[in-house]
Amino acid sequence: MTNGSTTPRNAEAGNEPRNPWDELPIRDELRGQSPYGAPQLDVPVRLNTNENPYPLPDALVDRIAERVREAARDLNRYPDRDAVELRTELARYLTRTAGHEVTAAHVWAANGSNEVLQQLLQTFGGPGRTAIGFEPSYSMHALISRGTGTGWISGPRGEDFTIDVAAARAAIAEHRPEVVFITSPNNPTGTAVDADTVLALYDAAQAAGPSIVVVDEAYGEFSHHPSLLPLIAGRRNLIVSRTMSKAFGAAGLRLGYLAADPAVVDAVQLVRLPYHLSSITQATALAALEHTDTLLGYVAQLKSERDRLVAELRAIGYEVTESDANFVQFGRFDDSHTAWQQILDRGVLVRDNGVPGWLRVTAGTPAENDAFLDAVRELKKEHDA
Amino acid sequence: MTNGSTTPRNAEAGNEPRNPWDELPIRDELRGQSPYGAPQLDVPVRLNTNENPYPLPDALVDRIAERVREAARDLNRYPDRDAVELRTELARYLTRTAGHEVTAAHVWAANGSNEVLQQLLQTFGGPGRTAIGFEPSYSMHALISRGTGTGWISGPRGEDFTIDVAAARAAIAEHRPEVVFITSPNNPTGTAVDADTVLALYDAAQAAGPSIVVVDEAYGEFSHHPSLLPLIAGRRNLIVSRTMSKAFGAAGLRLGYLAADPAVVDAVQLVRLPYHLSSITQATALAALEHTDTLLGYVAQLKSERDRLVAELRAIGYEVTESDANFVQFGRFDDSHTAWQQILDRGVLVRDNGVPGWLRVTAGTPAENDAFLDAVRELKKEHDA
Repeated sequence: MTNGSTTPRNAEAGNEPRNPWDELPIRDELRGQSPYGAPQLDVPVRLNTNENPYPLPDALVDRIAERVREAARDLNRYPDRDAVELRTELARYLTRTAGHEVTAAHVWAANGSNEVLQQLLQTFGGPGRTAIGFEPSYSMHALISRGTGTGWISGPRGEDFTIDVAAARAAIAEHRPEVVFITSPNNPTGTAVDADTVLALYDAAQAAGPSIVVVDEAYGEFSHHPSLLPLIAGRRNLIVSRTMSKAFGAAGLRLGYLAADPAVVDAVQLVRLPYHLSSITQATALAALEHTDTLLGYVAQLKSERDRLVAELRAIGYEVTESDANFVQFGRFDDSHTAWQQILDRGVLVRDNGVPGWLRVTAGTPAENDAFLDAVRELKKEHDA
Repeated sequence: MTNGSTTPRNAEAGNEPRNPWDELPIRDELRGQSPYGAPQLDVPVRLNTNENPYPLPDALVDRIAERVREAARDLNRYPDRDAVELRTELARYLTRTAGHEVTAAHVWAANGSNEVLQQLLQTFGGPGRTAIGFEPSYSMHALISRGTGTGWISGPRGEDFTIDVAAARAAIAEHRPEVVFITSPNNPTGTAVDADTVLALYDAAQAAGPSIVVVDEAYGEFSHHPSLLPLIAGRRNLIVSRTMSKAFGAAGLRLGYLAADPAVVDAVQLVRLPYHLSSITQATALAALEHTDTLLGYVAQLKSERDRLVAELRAIGYEVTESDANFVQFGRFDDSHTAWQQILDRGVLVRDNGVPGWLRVTAGTPAENDAFLDAVRELKKEHDA
């Protein structure tokens, strides 16, 4: 637990159980686990959680305050349970930017893509069912699966962190999972997945299932390649999930969404908590969607900074995984945790994702990226000396 | 599904399955279920969802806009994952109003008390475990139990809608549920539960378990009786849940919270989605907490209106269940759904909660309550004629 408020209880308790919850009747499979979350450290340059480094423009901050003020006048009333206006605008955004026409009926939104994924697992996974992901990948897929009682299968990924289609199809045929996660671009490696791979895995999943295939495009806007959204056409069991945390610079807003056949949106209604999305959240997201063009301008800058990070890290002498996201995986280190600490000692916080030999750095502002490059340049020199 | 956007698909589809999701690989136990939620109808007087009828005062609307504007400047960053400032202020509010001193370490917050309860069931319930509630009660307890794979046991309630302690203890001893729900004041009946009953059920649950006992005080501020919060002292498995939807007039905000031993708060970290509570939500809730006194003034008005509804309904000749909430259960009707429709035909929307013979009306403004009383007075006359 990162919350300092409980530290004294533990600190004083020499002979007590290791975790404060050990004496509570929690589920057995939770014993010995730790809460998910990167350390929130007070460091000059924080490039560890794939946040967008650009604060919202003033005009958008004003517009948020205005729309929230309007929503607050009716705050005594429950929000629109179906978030129709927001889903309409998200559909318009996808139609305009992702190469496929969708409507509100194809779109569902929740508090962060984590909640979207949780709702999908409650609908299509759960006890007695399994989900597969190709690891290393976004670790919340496994955690939310476990949190919903869904068995987790760690599928294979190639040496270069791409999905090996034959191996992945074999894993699907063997385990017959009800839910298949494909993260593109993949976190923490940055690897994009091409449409042919998605289709091959979808077909394998239908042959073994039928199963739901979730394409997690949280970092989709940063890719060199077009969105995989058009693949949902005619494929009722294919779902694309998205977030406003990264491209819209709104990690603090917690707004995730999906696009899929309308039947999927209908099915999720069976498990979503009623009125899950506050009227304040809906108002803020709608304001941000009004400023899409400005925000996509920041995305373009970040893509170019990401490409610069890849090039300069290679020039310094690091290995770098091809990246289509707003972050870069680099290595290799004999001991990546020590390297993480050494970079932190130079005032730059990156992410130690637990991929042996590798670390992950988020593309920040040009100045932040320079600070990071200086730090790892020094590290390289010391190491080679 | 209440979202009109999917209606055309169904309307055109004479020979298709009854629900649009029937051909998707959803979990078997979801088949044939319907989404939870009261009809959202456009009616002059809506007294069906226990909303607070008083819009937030202008000064609070201003303050929300101000605090949200501040939060929006950092919206590109993830929110405080532990919501420490908000939990501190919620603890201060409870300490001041609920007769027991608590700190941030005792308090946890989420998107509505539904999410709080979902997190508790993921931690303490889940597959292979069961939860019990004494029905009729808040139907989300059963639905969230099912949504988390927790078995549901419908416990008994007396003819007068109080909890029969001997029968409840027997049910706990027989079924040995891991989670016990006690709703006080109870929804939809309005019935308060006294401290002795809670203690008797807690002791039974510890003897059978140990089990978690959740006292759902969503309507606690409207009760004639003091909060049950002080009972958490020395009882690690007792949890009180609360919401800002009712007393704070903020149903649109989706802010629920719990108070319990700090070990419970720590345990919930194992299942909560990281950064579940947006910085916008935290800012809005903090603004509302600054205006507690004004909002509790509205609560006092609503309590007096609630008492008036009870008295006048009895004077008209209805049976009324004793109420400690911001709503009143009244009857009896040979056919409560027909009575619901007849009241709706007079422009007043009340709730048909599925308790045979009874309906539930939310205490609104004096004018709304007058409109309701006129409608049911007419109904009574017609019926008696």
